Amino acid sequence: MSNSKDSPIDRVNPEVLGVNSYSVPDIQCSVRLDGNESPFETDPELLNLISEEISSIELNRYPDPECTELKKIISNTYDFPDEGILLGNGSDELIQMLIETFNGKSGVVMVPGPTFSMYGLTSNILGNKVAETELDDNFDLDTDDIINKIKETDPDLLFFASPNNPTGNAFSQDKIIKVIEATSGVVVVDEAYFDYYGKTVIPLIQKYKNLVVLRTLSKIGFAAVRLGILFGSGEIVGQVNKTRLPYNINTLSQKIAEIVIKNENLLKKNYKKITAERERLYSELCKIENIKAYPSDANFFLIKVPDADYCFKTMAENDILIRNLSSNPKLSGCIRVTIGTIEENNAFLEALSAISFS
Amino acid sequence: MSNSKDSPIDRVNPEVLGVNSYSVPDIQCSVRLDGNESPFETDPELLNLISEEISSIELNRYPDPECTELKKIISNTYDFPDEGILLGNGSDELIQMLIETFNGKSGVVMVPGPTFSMYGLTSNILGNKVAETELDDNFDLDTDDIINKIKETDPDLLFFASPNNPTGNAFSQDKIIKVIEATSGVVVVDEAYFDYYGKTVIPLIQKYKNLVVLRTLSKIGFAAVRLGILFGSGEIVGQVNKTRLPYNINTLSQKIAEIVIKNENLLKKNYKKITAERERLYSELCKIENIKAYPSDANFFLIKVPDADYCFKTMAENDILIRNLSSNPKLSGCIRVTIGTIEENNAFLEALSAISFS
Repeated sequence: MSNSKDSPIDRVNPEVLGVNSYSVPDIQCSVRLDGNESPFETDPELLNLISEEISSIELNRYPDPECTELKKIISNTYDFPDEGILLGNGSDELIQMLIETFNGKSGVVMVPGPTFSMYGLTSNILGNKVAETELDDNFDLDTDDIINKIKETDPDLLFFASPNNPTGNAFSQDKIIKVIEATSGVVVVDEAYFDYYGKTVIPLIQKYKNLVVLRTLSKIGFAAVRLGILFGSGEIVGQVNKTRLPYNINTLSQKIAEIVIKNENLLKKNYKKITAERERLYSELCKIENIKAYPSDANFFLIKVPDADYCFKTMAENDILIRNLSSNPKLSGCIRVTIGTIEENNAFLEALSAISFS
Repeated sequence: MSNSKDSPIDRVNPEVLGVNSYSVPDIQCSVRLDGNESPFETDPELLNLISEEISSIELNRYPDPECTELKKIISNTYDFPDEGILLGNGSDELIQMLIETFNGKSGVVMVPGPTFSMYGLTSNILGNKVAETELDDNFDLDTDDIINKIKETDPDLLFFASPNNPTGNAFSQDKIIKVIEATSGVVVVDEAYFDYYGKTVIPLIQKYKNLVVLRTLSKIGFAAVRLGILFGSGEIVGQVNKTRLPYNINTLSQKIAEIVIKNENLLKKNYKKITAERERLYSELCKIENIKAYPSDANFFLIKVPDADYCFKTMAENDILIRNLSSNPKLSGCIRVTIGTIEENNAFLEALSAISFS
């Protein structure tokens, strides 16, 4: 059988063929307010502990596939049973595993918009159907609309980021409970920005077996490490774990995460600095004409400006990298700006005030 | 809508529900000959370079999503265009991405047996059909059988590990070419054990656009780091890359891999030690009665013994961990033993000679 004229590209999954890769624009600026990272260098005390630990790693050996020690530390710190904990190479991988696992009935993943793009992108690639609901004018959950859509589409899986990215607001526990009670699908509450908000739905997992909560080290100073944490019932974790690649968390990430989580008290002063800056920034942003800053429960602001493309470009010329969201029709004119250090925030405020949107 | 009686487990993908997780037995021994790792500690010169590099990482920042520097180093070292290079969190993740990408026509993944279990496991989880062909009595490719099965099932994707795990033998380039020419599906040659064999099919990629080659750092001293490397045409890599999670290689793995690949000459003495030990071990194994060691092109041996369960247990009692493969019907009575240091190999030989299989 000669197939010399056939191209292997003819065999690409049509879902994959149809999408573009998730790409981050490759622009280098000194002030990086685009990635919702923590702006602070690692605490020297922590850094010492980390260096010491790393130097004792046997690089020639595979990582512990079960992350036994790290899970024990998480279990103790969060007072959560370790059979209900699952770790991912960033939350991205946990999202992928959840989508691979929960598609047995309707194959529908419900996502409110606008939100973190990976929920929809990964669902599409894996061939799940995405049912999008709209957040209301304040970017809050419209539970009536969601419950109607649940009745229509019977989703296997529902994602809610709270605080939501890129809108910045958290959803109330009452509204989340309303949704959980309206579905037998798995409700995933992505609490990536928890540490800048302070309220969690983790305790609800005991009551609601269809609730799963995600956390990450990425927003609190350890984005380089890639560690996502899933909390759920032992039954759910047991299933999702089957889709996990055996050595998904490398030894360096395991060891660093162990130290970070054991010493999380050292990070708390940074959270306070960011939330204090959030208050100051919001009141400053409200003083600038022609723009609208949305209130934030996270470490970033969504801001509507008269011309987001121009704003992005001018900021980059000022050596400040922000996120331009205006290609999303629901976010036309919007930029997203991470809360940085006092100096970085002042540089941003100054540049924004100086832009004449004419 | 009250769903209080529905369980979220009803929504698990039946493929996932039906499988068990890939698990590695949790037995601790001082002599670890179970994982096909390199037995050697990291070269002190390399370790210094690594420690220095790691101390300069900004842990609060996301990894470079494109691994620009690492890909440049790989491109230079392997003299391969960087648009044809894709990196994974271990080869496991590259295998997963390939299976996600190439299932658009028949949805069939062809795998010869016995081989590395992740090809079939991941295919099953992702809902692809697995067509298994049998290796011949010497564990070599039976190309007539494979070509017949290609005509029957028209696979989108075919995996061949060469040298093959767990049988240890490599497949000849002629046989691989015969298969490549018989299919328009994507042929993946997993060269995880290349450095203990020395021959590669990477140069064939220029001629055969449906050929993809995998490499890894796991067998040459850096299993802790989790880095898999895919070589293929720019067209294939462009498609597979769409299924990649954006920050799949963390900063620590990127930096360590950069140093390791730039300084690979420092590792070559270790490969030589292992291949010298392979010769010695083989001739020693041939002297032991009642067992059959298969010739190896890799850093491990497949050995048929009268009672693999007993052998595994006795080895563990002697503080030596090996792999018991006897649950696979094609490998009944077989164990797999990694080539370790001289001392480790002697300990294994001694223990094996002392076992009375009665």
